[in-house]
Amino acid sequence: MHLLIDGYGADPELLADQQLIAEFLDEFPSQIGMTKISSPQVHNYVGAVPEDWGVSGFVIIAESHISIHTFPDRQYVNIDIFSCKEFDDQSTLDKLQTRFNLTNVRSWSVSRGLEHLNPPTGVERLSC
Amino acid sequence: MHLLIDGYGADPELLADQQLIAEFLDEFPSQIGMTKISSPQVHNYVGAVPEDWGVSGFVIIAESHISIHTFPDRQYVNIDIFSCKEFDDQSTLDKLQTRFNLTNVRSWSVSRGLEHLNPPTGVERLSC
Repeated sequence: MHLLIDGYGADPELLADQQLIAEFLDEFPSQIGMTKISSPQVHNYVGAVPEDWGVSGFVIIAESHISIHTFPDRQYVNIDIFSCKEFDDQSTLDKLQTRFNLTNVRSWSVSRGLEHLNPPTGVERLSC
Repeated sequence: MHLLIDGYGADPELLADQQLIAEFLDEFPSQIGMTKISSPQVHNYVGAVPEDWGVSGFVIIAESHISIHTFPDRQYVNIDIFSCKEFDDQSTLDKLQTRFNLTNVRSWSVSRGLEHLNPPTGVERLSC
């Protein structure tokens, strides 16, 4: 399963802190029963639009990956939890909402990964 | 936009080659008009189930990230192209289908990112 989360109203000081984002990536896999196979990689990003700056980070887990992109000035964050194994997406979402103080959340649960091996005929395109 | 791709029938020798996967992550962003802000990170994974082994990698781009997880023994690959800016998902899908010799593909185009800032009321959950 792949859980995609767009969180709004997040704590801007947390979103702005590269060290705290690295700690999140370091700690969160074990909190949801997943296993890191790399150290977290975290980068600051400063773009053409000043309020688009933020922190991007990634950790590879045995089951696939966790990624995060933060936009402190917008109190907006994108988080992905992708595992080739099934996991409790509601519980994971609850933990993230608490950790980042999210007031509003849109999430997508996508059925993909090893437990969903099911080749389509040709090319199948879906929009969500 | 976030484009998620599950590809079947892929070239197993390509999927098994950590160096070729690193080259893909290094080259592909510029081929679709995106800008790397990190070097590709690539890891081999060997799990409890022998045929689940493969290569996992990602590269952070200014616009968000590209990730890949390969399963050579299953000729199966998961690829994510996530950009906070819009991009041509059909053209990107075509390039990936060619590069990995995919015979069957399931893809999801998810409307998220800075061009889709649109807070829901409370928590909105979608399944795809």
